[in-house]
Amino acid sequence: MELSHFNEAGKARMVDVTAKNDTVREAVAEGRVTMRPQTLELVKKGAMGKGDVLAVAQVGGIMGAKRTWELIPMCHPLLLTGVNIEFTLREEISAIDIRATVKTTGKTGVEMEALTAVSVAALTIYDMCKAVDKDMIVEYIRLTAKSGGKSGNYQREESV
Amino acid sequence: MELSHFNEAGKARMVDVTAKNDTVREAVAEGRVTMRPQTLELVKKGAMGKGDVLAVAQVGGIMGAKRTWELIPMCHPLLLTGVNIEFTLREEISAIDIRATVKTTGKTGVEMEALTAVSVAALTIYDMCKAVDKDMIVEYIRLTAKSGGKSGNYQREESV
Amino acid sequence: MELSHFNEAGKARMVDVTAKNDTVREAVAEGRVTMRPQTLELVKKGAMGKGDVLAVAQVGGIMGAKRTWELIPMCHPLLLTGVNIEFTLREEISAIDIRATVKTTGKTGVEMEALTAVSVAALTIYDMCKAVDKDMIVEYIRLTAKSGGKSGNYQREESV
Amino acid sequence: MELSHFNEAGKARMVDVTAKNDTVREAVAEGRVTMRPQTLELVKKGAMGKGDVLAVAQVGGIMGAKRTWELIPMCHPLLLTGVNIEFTLREEISAIDIRATVKTTGKTGVEMEALTAVSVAALTIYDMCKAVDKDMIVEYIRLTAKSGGKSGNYQREESV
Amino acid sequence: MELSHFNEAGKARMVDVTAKNDTVREAVAEGRVTMRPQTLELVKKGAMGKGDVLAVAQVGGIMGAKRTWELIPMCHPLLLTGVNIEFTLREEISAIDIRATVKTTGKTGVEMEALTAVSVAALTIYDMCKAVDKDMIVEYIRLTAKSGGKSGNYQREESV
Amino acid sequence: MELSHFNEAGKARMVDVTAKNDTVREAVAEGRVTMRPQTLELVKKGAMGKGDVLAVAQVGGIMGAKRTWELIPMCHPLLLTGVNIEFTLREEISAIDIRATVKTTGKTGVEMEALTAVSVAALTIYDMCKAVDKDMIVEYIRLTAKSGGKSGNYQREESV
Repeated sequence: MELSHFNEAGKARMVDVTAKNDTVREAVAEGRVTMRPQTLELVKKGAMGKGDVLAVAQVGGIMGAKRTWELIPMCHPLLLTGVNIEFTLREEISAIDIRATVKTTGKTGVEMEALTAVSVAALTIYDMCKAVDKDMIVEYIRLTAKSGGKSGNYQREESV
Repeated sequence: MELSHFNEAGKARMVDVTAKNDTVREAVAEGRVTMRPQTLELVKKGAMGKGDVLAVAQVGGIMGAKRTWELIPMCHPLLLTGVNIEFTLREEISAIDIRATVKTTGKTGVEMEALTAVSVAALTIYDMCKAVDKDMIVEYIRLTAKSGGKSGNYQREESV
Repeated sequence: MELSHFNEAGKARMVDVTAKNDTVREAVAEGRVTMRPQTLELVKKGAMGKGDVLAVAQVGGIMGAKRTWELIPMCHPLLLTGVNIEFTLREEISAIDIRATVKTTGKTGVEMEALTAVSVAALTIYDMCKAVDKDMIVEYIRLTAKSGGKSGNYQREESV
Repeated sequence: MELSHFNEAGKARMVDVTAKNDTVREAVAEGRVTMRPQTLELVKKGAMGKGDVLAVAQVGGIMGAKRTWELIPMCHPLLLTGVNIEFTLREEISAIDIRATVKTTGKTGVEMEALTAVSVAALTIYDMCKAVDKDMIVEYIRLTAKSGGKSGNYQREESV
Repeated sequence: MELSHFNEAGKARMVDVTAKNDTVREAVAEGRVTMRPQTLELVKKGAMGKGDVLAVAQVGGIMGAKRTWELIPMCHPLLLTGVNIEFTLREEISAIDIRATVKTTGKTGVEMEALTAVSVAALTIYDMCKAVDKDMIVEYIRLTAKSGGKSGNYQREESV
Repeated sequence: MELSHFNEAGKARMVDVTAKNDTVREAVAEGRVTMRPQTLELVKKGAMGKGDVLAVAQVGGIMGAKRTWELIPMCHPLLLTGVNIEFTLREEISAIDIRATVKTTGKTGVEMEALTAVSVAALTIYDMCKAVDKDMIVEYIRLTAKSGGKSGNYQREESV
């Protein structure tokens, strides 16, 4: 078992995927921002009327996904063909759950793009709310499903 | 208590900080990538010789911090004057802890820059290791300290 | 009367503003997207509930303003300290009016940043609505006011 | 008739075009910068010798077209395969007409890329001339033709 | 013999490659940073332990290659499918040789991407060492081989 | 004598310049593109009429300078206050000499920005001419002068 992002000299490289086929690929990632109940309440009010934190996080996350290859040093550039982000307000645990689905037709998977979409959306929520709550925590960012490509499908086993 | 990132019409704006003073500001953020023990072992071997995952994550995190204002929709552009990232291998919990310290002299704080540095470094670790471990989790991204600016200092109370 | 963006050889340069003072500067630009009444109606419905075109255009315009210096070849980089965008639905002329206010403390004005905010917001509206109306026109993008800096204030005389 | 850039929850998404075919696509957009006759005269002199405003606007517009997907929040990234920009000095109306032709082989059209090329070229002209004329107006930015893709061809009917 | 990057009016354009085939393409570029022997010694020590200049240059060069189309005005965007950079310490001439190999499947070659990878890697070395040696020279940046595409293969004849 | 871009653990960092003063800083860098006499002749003809390679390289170099901090991993972001690029056709050695002058008021020098301006301008020339001459060499990129900041002035001794 070896890490693939290194050349024979042990130095970082962008893995050669030239010979791989263009196939439809999809990845789903999820994450969570935990916050004070009062902060969640403010977000909730905004989502129903004025000051929509989640609308901004949605745009930030989608735009962030497109720039994954610029941010993550060894990521391959990809032409994303679809990005969707969903937020779930979890009042019972005082948190916002984030779920990003990313698609492409290409030579490598879009796991990193889905994870980046979630991360940027989460950071945007933090940014929009930090004036009232600096204790928020971004957590549980993980790949939950992946399909397409030679390595086959992936489905995380979990119950949250 | 109100969210500041909205104008009178309830629409998102970049908060007006024109009248704020340029002061020295520093923020520290931390986060963690949890992984299988075998994956951590591979990272550890690389850090000692060939294939240094953490060296790439270090560069990715620093470059990501500089681009925070491009990623986070309502963030103000800032001239970062210092970025440092430290990794701690936590074998007892099979994780890598990431700590980023960011400084500037400017009108707004660098909390988001520190959190972005940690996030991009964490995503880079995920990217470099995902061929061998897709179950990694990026978690516990949080602001741990902040100084400078009108809102005063912040120190997270925690014991991990 | 001479164009300033050229050196002695008549070649483009980024004008030397090193000796100018850092002063508070503000610029206001406006523009308009003209569309079919049915298209305006769709935007209006979204603004009141589902599918908010203007929320996306707001974020797009603000993020575009920050990147003005990357887009406009001879623009100086500036640290924007405030960006606000307002939309007015003009049913009587079947159009959306866009108004951007940009502030900075710096050595050059923010006219281009305000104009870019309006332009990107207008293009975003076009993008979000083009599936139903390709005949939209982006028009009347202009500087309406400017203050700060050696060249003094500017106020467009107009009645639209 | 519905706007396509929203998911079932009414939130913005990048439309899923995964299943669309890669076809040759072309779009033509036009726009205009209206200015004082003396300003147009200065541009004209530059175009013939020293201080070529339009050469800079040409480069700015082409580079802007390539970055459309970074600027317009819900735009898909595309590999542009050709960008051409033409300027026409319109002394009878004291204006510069801009026309951009953009091509790609891909899953979505290049309307936004052509419109962005025109917009950035127009803003660059404004930037290069604003020291002598702040009253310029960027106007009449519109799609004039489009071919390729499932939605078929588009040809604006107009006489200017 | 004519330069291809101009339209009929003699103005710069992005050459129309729409009709070209997607083929596998590879380019190799090389370059050199000449420095004082003491500076080379510092780099060498770092490469063996602490403070690895070349690890940072490796990441910088790879990330720079991906952004070539953003930097070089008339370059076509391309999806790089592999980037590798190798450094050779040349103590006999007190220099570091840089060699970048870039691959893609696309309509245009990756010569510029390979040259940009070398250039950014070289500039990164300069940046990391400039505190101790401002006399370094970046030199001999050249294409050494190219394959794929209609124009056929290229192999530089040289002996250095 | 130590390299400054590393922290105590020997890992790369962005050097902390928070405590440095904002002073006026200027750097001049030069470089050269060597080409066949026929290629130089084509560039020369363009510079006098149609197809101006150097006008594009000028814009590319200036825009590249502004993005130095995005490209070079450990570079600090800076607000450039002036960029000028000059080209000299050197028929006696069949080359184009490039000279970039960059200014800022800030906490760190602009050596890297001047070197990047020269490099991107040189690569742009290569790109614009590569259809007729793949043997061009970018060479002799060096800092020639620097002023401002604590480390004092620098003037390269040379005669080319």
